[in-house]
Amino acid sequence: MREPALGRHLIVEVFEADSHLLNDVQGLEQLLLDAARAANATVVKSVFHRFSPYGVSGVVVIAESHLTIHTWPEYGYAAIDIFTCGPKMDLDAAVEVIRQGLGGRLLQIEINRGQGVRRLRGDRADCKYAVGATTS
Amino acid sequence: MREPALGRHLIVEVFEADSHLLNDVQGLEQLLLDAARAANATVVKSVFHRFSPYGVSGVVVIAESHLTIHTWPEYGYAAIDIFTCGPKMDLDAAVEVIRQGLGGRLLQIEINRGQGVRRLRGDRADCKYAVGATTS
Repeated sequence: MREPALGRHLIVEVFEADSHLLNDVQGLEQLLLDAARAANATVVKSVFHRFSPYGVSGVVVIAESHLTIHTWPEYGYAAIDIFTCGPKMDLDAAVEVIRQGLGGRLLQIEINRGQGVRRLRGDRADCKYAVGATTS
Repeated sequence: MREPALGRHLIVEVFEADSHLLNDVQGLEQLLLDAARAANATVVKSVFHRFSPYGVSGVVVIAESHLTIHTWPEYGYAAIDIFTCGPKMDLDAAVEVIRQGLGGRLLQIEINRGQGVRRLRGDRADCKYAVGATTS
């Protein structure tokens, strides 16, 4: 039986999305925060910026890892990553929030991060939920 | 001829690395900042936190996208992502900084993000370097 991965990393390619939505820095920050919460994540911090002349980049740091988005409104395209650890995370719910919020079409790839590492070491790590020192 | 991707996304799996280094939140923040600068990136912000009892998560937001790290010191493992746009980025230099800093062994996968999107729309987008409004 395959051992569980340490991290689940969902790569989401969004295309044919609305260009105005993809250029709305506040709307996208709210969308990714909503997606994080839909996934049962604990939000630590979010950092978003808008580019000149267009495009938005943003990161939501969660206690269980991160969500990121980079948009190219001129192509109706967004690159989204959802990286989590822990069995309680509902990635499907996060993706559904994004799908509803952005419209367009989505492609997903899931990558198992750290697959095989446990076998090298033996014992079992749980997801780390308790956040200690934070820098910013 | 294949069109250029909008984003280059390097997935780096580090294993058999030193556990103490993987638990040093300040050292890892400095390491990722050094890696970002080695890649010719413009650092916008970094957010790092240490978990209890061990493990570090961090994000370096760059004008050209992001770098992230999540570590499991108990397994000598780190999951690192380097997401960039723009032809001037030197991803190999960034990876070399990480390799030197963490030791251990590295596996890399590169994913072309937004490949094919330009063909849907036609014209060419340059990488967005000029940062506008930033939230935090």
